[in-house]
This record gives sequence, structure tokens and C-alpha cells, in this order.
Amino acid sequence: MDEGRPVYAGDTAERLGMLRAELGRRGIDGFIVPRTDEYQGEYVPAASQRLAWLTGFTGSAGLAIVLPDSAAVFVDGRYTLQAEAEVDARLFARRHVTGAPPAAWIAQSLKPGQKLGYDPRLTTLGEVERYGAAAAKAGGSLVALLDNPVDAVWKDRPAPPCAPVVAHELRFAGESADSKRRRIAASLGASEADAAVLTAPDSIAWLLNIRGGDVPHTPLALSFAILHADSSVDLFIEREKLSPGLDRHLGPAVRIASPAAFGAALERLAASGQRVAADPASAASWVFDRLGTAARRVADPCQLPKACKNTVELDGARAAHRRDGAALTRFLAWLAGNVASGQLREIAVSDRLEAFRREGELFRDLSFPTISGAGSNGAIVHYHASPASERGLEKNSFYLVDSGAQYLDGTTDVTRTVAIGEPNAEMKDRFTRVLKGHIALALCRFPRGTTGSQLDALARAALWQAGLDYDHGTGHGVGSYLGVHEGPQRISKLPNSQALLPGMIVSNEPGYYKTGAYGIRIENLVAVIKLAGLGDGEVYGFETLTLAPIDRNAIDASLLERHETEWLDAYHAQVRDSLTPLVDPDTAAWLAAATRPLGG
Amino acid sequence: MDEGRPVYAGDTAERLGMLRAELGRRGIDGFIVPRTDEYQGEYVPAASQRLAWLTGFTGSAGLAIVLPDSAAVFVDGRYTLQAEAEVDARLFARRHVTGAPPAAWIAQSLKPGQKLGYDPRLTTLGEVERYGAAAAKAGGSLVALLDNPVDAVWKDRPAPPCAPVVAHELRFAGESADSKRRRIAASLGASEADAAVLTAPDSIAWLLNIRGGDVPHTPLALSFAILHADSSVDLFIEREKLSPGLDRHLGPAVRIASPAAFGAALERLAASGQRVAADPASAASWVFDRLGTAARRVADPCQLPKACKNTVELDGARAAHRRDGAALTRFLAWLAGNVASGQLREIAVSDRLEAFRREGELFRDLSFPTISGAGSNGAIVHYHASPASERGLEKNSFYLVDSGAQYLDGTTDVTRTVAIGEPNAEMKDRFTRVLKGHIALALCRFPRGTTGSQLDALARAALWQAGLDYDHGTGHGVGSYLGVHEGPQRISKLPNSQALLPGMIVSNEPGYYKTGAYGIRIENLVAVIKLAGLGDGEVYGFETLTLAPIDRNAIDASLLERHETEWLDAYHAQVRDSLTPLVDPDTAAWLAAATRPLGG
Repeated sequence: MDEGRPVYAGDTAERLGMLRAELGRRGIDGFIVPRTDEYQGEYVPAASQRLAWLTGFTGSAGLAIVLPDSAAVFVDGRYTLQAEAEVDARLFARRHVTGAPPAAWIAQSLKPGQKLGYDPRLTTLGEVERYGAAAAKAGGSLVALLDNPVDAVWKDRPAPPCAPVVAHELRFAGESADSKRRRIAASLGASEADAAVLTAPDSIAWLLNIRGGDVPHTPLALSFAILHADSSVDLFIEREKLSPGLDRHLGPAVRIASPAAFGAALERLAASGQRVAADPASAASWVFDRLGTAARRVADPCQLPKACKNTVELDGARAAHRRDGAALTRFLAWLAGNVASGQLREIAVSDRLEAFRREGELFRDLSFPTISGAGSNGAIVHYHASPASERGLEKNSFYLVDSGAQYLDGTTDVTRTVAIGEPNAEMKDRFTRVLKGHIALALCRFPRGTTGSQLDALARAALWQAGLDYDHGTGHGVGSYLGVHEGPQRISKLPNSQALLPGMIVSNEPGYYKTGAYGIRIENLVAVIKLAGLGDGEVYGFETLTLAPIDRNAIDASLLERHETEWLDAYHAQVRDSLTPLVDPDTAAWLAAATRPLGG
Repeated sequence: MDEGRPVYAGDTAERLGMLRAELGRRGIDGFIVPRTDEYQGEYVPAASQRLAWLTGFTGSAGLAIVLPDSAAVFVDGRYTLQAEAEVDARLFARRHVTGAPPAAWIAQSLKPGQKLGYDPRLTTLGEVERYGAAAAKAGGSLVALLDNPVDAVWKDRPAPPCAPVVAHELRFAGESADSKRRRIAASLGASEADAAVLTAPDSIAWLLNIRGGDVPHTPLALSFAILHADSSVDLFIEREKLSPGLDRHLGPAVRIASPAAFGAALERLAASGQRVAADPASAASWVFDRLGTAARRVADPCQLPKACKNTVELDGARAAHRRDGAALTRFLAWLAGNVASGQLREIAVSDRLEAFRREGELFRDLSFPTISGAGSNGAIVHYHASPASERGLEKNSFYLVDSGAQYLDGTTDVTRTVAIGEPNAEMKDRFTRVLKGHIALALCRFPRGTTGSQLDALARAALWQAGLDYDHGTGHGVGSYLGVHEGPQRISKLPNSQALLPGMIVSNEPGYYKTGAYGIRIENLVAVIKLAGLGDGEVYGFETLTLAPIDRNAIDASLLERHETEWLDAYHAQVRDSLTPLVDPDTAAWLAAATRPLGG
């Protein structure tokens, strides 16, 4: 799939004009264009990149609002610079989504009597409420437009994706779709629901043990589903996507229907008097409009079971991490041998890493676009190297590489920060504080019921001691050959009521970023495990899954406490023992040196 | 004030019968009797102890619901045992407030058509919503009764308290009431309010620099107030409470009115078109009923400014803690010299501590009833020693004493756990883990914006490593010659969005409790301070205010890291240097030994 910048017919001014003309024809004054599609997922297929088409902005989160005489693009802190580069300021005001939220802009900019349109398939209930209140405050109104006006004027709109849907084999999934359907159907009663609407494609993929390829990096089949109390499922998906034999895999309890039939099915369900669960966080307002009073607002019933991996999935994750660690270690050894040339640059280097990964068994894709940041580019948290932006890997700097892959047996996500030459004392101090936070989280134990929000400070305390911090979460959930970002758990400053439960996979990724100078992040994936024979109640801890050396040359060993040195040495011994059989002799020799005890 | 169990005319069955008869006369089927009074505070005067009168239960939190054929008392985990001892199970079912919440009981027990009464002066909006929904679910209804039926049949009801109200001098308050009134009045605009209703007596005490004595342990004058945008105040209080000269202290901008005039004043305010701020967390639903659409639901505007102590209050707190530390140290030295006799018992010992405190300058009261728990009684978190329950201080046990005082210049709250004889290895291990948690919190630094919820795990991590935990918060806010428990900050597992800000005083009190065996808690008060010259942004830390030795004999020094030993030694040096000049030579000699370096 092409991840470069898309090219559309006409210039932005022309396309904005076409949209305004279309709105005029419909008697509507304005329109809201979110980045998201009807699945509210992280990746959006080219056919649904309406925000990019309209504004040129290609970031993964954002929103435009078009009015007759003004328009604005709203992005978050990650994308301020990118929006400045991509969006024409003469056409769109560029706003920070938290500082000047869209609702406030609507309240200020809409004129009395004006009608602001929105596409209810792309908008959540919460958004409709906020935008509606803002429009009312301005004396205008918010109007649902089922027929998206962008689509009406987007002449060169790509076809929707139609990647084949295949079975996810039991030897990877560890639980049959039949068992999952029964288990989740049985849980509906607790939510006082007779059926559940599933609008998140990763939930459908997990429930039915299917995988697709409609978006980059996450093996999803874009689709909707309804799970009934009798454990049967209506799956709304284009029939031509189904690979040969998939019918047999799905079985007679899964009825295939056209996506176009989804709305009518919801209305029929509501009319039949059934109570229908739908997740206000992920289902569009359009779903709730169809369900009316039949809707029960509850969390997606697949989300938590999907997050808690079974033993087959955990074993798969361990195996995938061994192969992934071998590829990353081959890369790090290659880097160590070639960096002195002074010729290495960000894109070529990350291509090399990808090539090593592609040689691995069961490899299917990267799990996200590699972040390959040399020197000051490492300080840009969501950096994406381009020929214009890339830097060389220079002496006495840090090189940060955050990457991962989709294997049939597991999803990986790992960040290493490599010292090129000799980092200065401040850089080593910061690296070591990040490492101390990483170790504190890796070693921590906690009672049942503890949330990721409660643990977050453990990863930051060593930085906080020096008055430093990092402006991102400490850990996100990771799927099993599914999304590299998944909920409901999270390790973050933000409050989160989801307790960490055995089988959950989360990242452990503290960092430190000095703008214009360097970036540091140390990321391993860990699994929540139950610890036996300890203390007063049920106690959990983390098993580190990721296997790759952490750069000894970046550490100020005098800052480490004994238990921290012990953790690092034990981790490195495990990395060495696991990966040596999987790599060539030259890499093995480099690995032996890279993983020797810190005192040694 | 008498803190023993109150005695009422008649037995519980008789009183319950009288209430049911009164309800019958009014055509009401049931009634809700909360422990709280109309100020929603921690302490309730005898005249408002309706729950104790009706059920015999004297705990500080609870609720009874009376129906024609059934009745129940709801208490939380702290009071399960006490409710079993105090409440007649033949008259009242005894329920845990979280396991079987009152609303669920109402939904189950109320019969179709029945009317359940409640007193809107004693009930928050949230409670009215929950109880109302439950009653509706049962086919019944919730009915506001302005004239409390308990009061109608409570023959020997004590008179309401009428303690004198005095000025809190500027040399203790550090900011004039005039300045506070202007400051808070100026802040009303941000809440889009023209006036604010103050129903929390501690907010009124802070705002007007007044103190009273209507409830035990907290120098409050029970009263209501309305703060206007012009910074004038209507204070609703019995005129005879005002001590001579208080009019002059209050000044012409504070108008005195009878508490009976409060409701009409609210209605007048609403009718005049003003927007009136009221705090749904602390104001009764009755207030919102009076205000109607004029009400703005916002937090009490005095709460946060009151929590952030000014430099005069902080200096007062430091001085109060020196005197309090001297009294506690005299007590600990006395205890060390007398405990070998085997004759010391919980009540006599805590009386002795109180006597030492009463000798201190500016002492006014204890800040809460002392928790004096020997051996297994120390494991009862909210233990109150009685002649029936008290234990002797036995060899090879822990004695836990949690106590504090109200001084004119500050409020104290301190817990020490004393080793009597030689604690066993497990006890020392647990004590040392609690100490490690205490030190981790005392030493931590954190960026602006950090909440107590984020820091909570730092105090627990050392216990969590061994699979242990404690079932209470880690820290509560503390007032300045006001409530020993105050918000809005808190260090707790529970989510809390209030950032810790400079000047806030909080407790640092991790613990460990082994039921039937021993209890451990180490509590100091700390102040949030700004640290200069550190890191990337604004950085805060804690200054420990409490001064008293931590028992070296309970520590397993081999479990401490170097920075922990350094903290303890430095703390003990500070305790010794601060208190030696304030104590007699014998105590000074004991203190010198008790505070010598851990290695020494």
C-alpha cells in the first residue's frame, strides 16, 4: 500500500470551492470533515481520506470545518508542524485541537440561522452533542447529512479496499470462533442486552478468527457485525472479499450480508423489541440513530476478552518476539559495523531493518511505519523520515528507531536508542534515567485491580527527580496479529479505570526528548502474568517479551542501583541465550559483546 | 464534648416504632436517615445525630432506610464490626454500602405505589437521583419531606450547638478576610456566576477568618453564607454565637442573618436573575431546589484557595509541628521508660499523650480522637479504644498511635508505630517496606500538573513487591487550624483530577495491617513546595513538616537502599536539632539515642 502523500486532481482551493458549491446546492452552510472513517480506527483507507483530499493534511488525527467564508483545520500537538507544512494557511486557519477546540470555533464562527452539516457515519455521539451545543449557542443548527457531500464532488476518489479475508488459524488464535461467539453472547445478559453491534473491525477479526488487509499495518477486514444472544452473527462485508473456503471457516452461524444492509438490520432489530448493545466510544452516532431506544450504551463486549491473550497467543507472542529480536539484533550489529563510515542516513537504515524483518518466518507486514530518527529528529515523537527531512547518523549522537512487525503468531513494537560514537554526560544521564524508569516498570508487582494509570509514575520517577518528563503515555495495549495499539488498558498519566489483567500485552516505553538535540526511548512489550505464592492476595507482574540489547554505551552505570544493574544483566543474558541460535556468527559475536554484564 | 456513646430515651425498637407511626400519620411509607447533617461535614453535632438515635450506630458514615416491614443500615468496610456490635439485627438488616448499595436495596424492597421520604437538607443531588431512580424502578416514588419526621418524635433531642465564634487572627491566617472575599468574588466570573452559596462551614471559616466550636476537633461555626460579586457576604448564623467584637472583625461587608432566612435569601437571589454557584458535592439538594435554574453547579470556590496555604500559614504549620513533635517525643521517651513494667494500656497511654500536648502553647483541641492500638488492635485502621476493647502494650509487639492536635497556628496529624521489645523478622520486614514507601513519597519530585493519584503507587511499590498492600488512601489534605481532613487534593488509588500545588499540606501515611496480629503506619504531614533551578519546567516536591523519631528498633536496615538510609538519618538529625531545645534533659538524652544514624 502506498504510504506516500496522496495526489488528487485540482488544487486545494479548487477542491474547497467544489465542496462549498455542493453545500450551496443542498442549502447547507457548512460541513465537518473528520479524518476518521466509519470504523473509527487508527488507519483509514485511501477511499476514506476525505480530510487529506480537502485540506492536504495527512496526519493520523484531525478535523476540518468548512463555513461559507472561513474554514479551519484542527490538529493535536503531534501534528502542529506537519499541518503548517501541508495545509494552505490562506484557505484554512490551523488550530490546536485542545487549545482551541472545534466546538469553541463553531460557537464563534457559525452565524445565526446557518446550518452546519456532519456525516453521522463518521461522528460519535459525544461529538454530535458538543458540536450541536456549539451550533445552538451560535444561533445555528447542526444537520445530519447521510449522503456525504465530499464524496459527491471527489472525482478521482479511489475504490474502497477489497483485500481478501482469510481465516486466522486456531494454532495462532488458541480459541475457536465458535467458542468465542458463545462466550461473548453469554456475556450480553450482564449488559441487559439481547444483541451487540460490533463496529470495530479488530473486534470482528478477533471474534471470528479472520484477518484481512484493507488498511496498512493492521490485518483488518473493514466490516460491521451483529452478535446475537444465540451466538449467531450477521457479518456485513462485501462477499467478494471472502477468500475461498472462508464460508466453511465461518460456519452456518455466521450469516454474510452486504454492508448496505447494515442500517436496515439495525432498524429491524430495534423494531423487534430487542435491546442492543453498542459502544458509544467506537460506534458512530448513525448506529444509535438507527437503534433509537433499543440502544444500550456499553463497551464493545469483545474488547476486554481480546486484550487478555490466551496461552496459545502468549506462546505465539514469545516466538514472534524471538524472530523479531533476531532481525533487530542483526540490524543493530550491521549498524555498529557500518556507522563509522558516516554515510548512513535515516531512510536507508530503516529500509535495511525492514529487509532483515522480511526474512523472518510468518512475517506479514510492519506493524506501523518505522520511526527512524537521527540526532534532533529523534526528539520528534511521531517522526516520519522523508527525503527532505532525513538526517545522517552522525558521530556522538543518538539514533532512535521505533519499529515493529505483524507476524501470524504475534505483533511486535520495540524502540532502541543507539549511541553513535560517544554521547556526552547529559545524554548518558538522561538515557540512564529513562532506563531506570523502564526497569522500575519491568520489575514492579501489583495487586489485582491495579490500573496502568496507577503504575505510570514508576516509569517517570527517575526523570522527575531531575525535573524532566516525557509528553506521551508510558504504555499501550498490543493485539495478537492485530492492532499495535489496542485498548482498553493503558499505562498513562490519564485516568483509566481498566485494571491490568493476566494475558494483557502492553508496551513499556518511557522516553526523554530534548527538542533540537536528541530523543531517547526504550521500549519493550511486556505481558501481565500472575505471580504465585506471594503475599496476601492475587499478585501480578510483567514478563518482558521483547528481546534485543539495550545500548550499554549510552548508560552511566554509576547512576544505577544494584537491583537495576541486576535486571539489565539478567535481561541481556536472556537476550543472548534466546537469540544467539537464531543469528549468524558475526552477529552472535557482536551480541555477546553487547550483552556482557555491565560491570564486565 | 462528650465522645462516648450517646444515651437516648426508650430502646431502639421503641424509637423505630415512633418513627414508623409518625410516617404513618403523614401518609409516607418509608424514610431515609443519613448520618450526615446539612453541612455534609465529618463531624455532626449531637442534635443532628439522627442515625445514632434511630439505630444505635455511632460510626462517622452510614445510612438507614426504614420501610413499613423492613429496615436496613448501610455502612462501609471500616464500620462492619462496629455496626454488628451496635445495631440490633432483629430491627435492621446490616449491609455493606458498596456491596449492596442503598439504591439497590430500595429497588428491591420498596413496593409499587409506596412513598419513600427523604430530607432534602441532608441529601445531595446525586443521592436524590440514585434513590429516585431506584424508587421508580420499584414502582414507588421518592418524596421530599422538609419537616424531618425523626425530629418530630425525638423527645430528648439535644439543643443545637451554640459555641462562641471568634476571629482567627491575621498573624495566623496570613491574609485578611477582606482580601480573601475580594479574591474569591473576583473568581466567580470564570464560573459564569454572580454569587456563590457556601454551605461548607470550613470554607466560611477560611473566607471570613473566623473559628468556632460547634463540633468536636474541628474549630467550625456551623453556618451558611452567600458571597456576592461585590465581595460582600450574607452570613446565616445565630447572632448569639458571635463573640464580643466579632462584628468589628467581620466589618460592614458581612451582613449577619438568621439561619432561618437562608432559604428565602436563595429564592430572592434566583428571582433577581442572578446566576448562583453551588457545589453539588457539598451543598444539599434543598439548596438547588431553592435556586432552580439560577444554580451553576461548580466546585466550592474557597476549597482550592484554602488548600494552598500562604507563607504565614506554612510558617505556622512549621511552628505547630515543632511543639507537637516535642510533645510526641516526650511521650515516646516516657513510653520507652515505662513500657517494660507491662502495666501500660491503650487508654491510659493515649491520655498521657494528650496531657503532654495540652501543655503546648496555642493548643486548642485534639484534631481527631486518638487511635491508640496495641498488638492486634493496631490492625484495625479506624480503631477507637474502649475499656472493653483495650489491650496492654505487650512485649515483642507493635503499638500504633495516630494522633494530632489543633493549634491556633496549625493542625497536626502524625502516626508512629513503636516496637515493644523485639519484633520478629516478618514484622521488621513489613515495617521497613512501609518506611520505604514513606521515604519514596517524601523524596519524590514531580512536574506541575501531577495529581496525588499519580504518586500513590510510589508509597506502595515496596509492599507490592512482596504481594502486600494497605486498604486506605496514602494521603489526605490538612487544614490550617481547620479540618484535619480537607480536599480537594488526595493521594490515593482513586482517580483525582486535582493537581498538587505549592502550599498544599497532605499526609504521607502508608501502612500495613495483619488482621489479628499487628498494624503498622508511618505518617508525617508534608507541604508541597516549588523546587528552583531544576529540569525543563516547573517542578514540585515535598517538605516534611512532622518532627518525631521513627522507631529504629522496628527497621531491618539491610532492606534499605543507601538513599533511604540517608533520608532517615537526615530526617532524624533534623528532628533532633529542632526538638532538643524544646524538651527536658531526660527526653533529650532519649531523643539523641533514638535519632542516631542508622549505621551508628
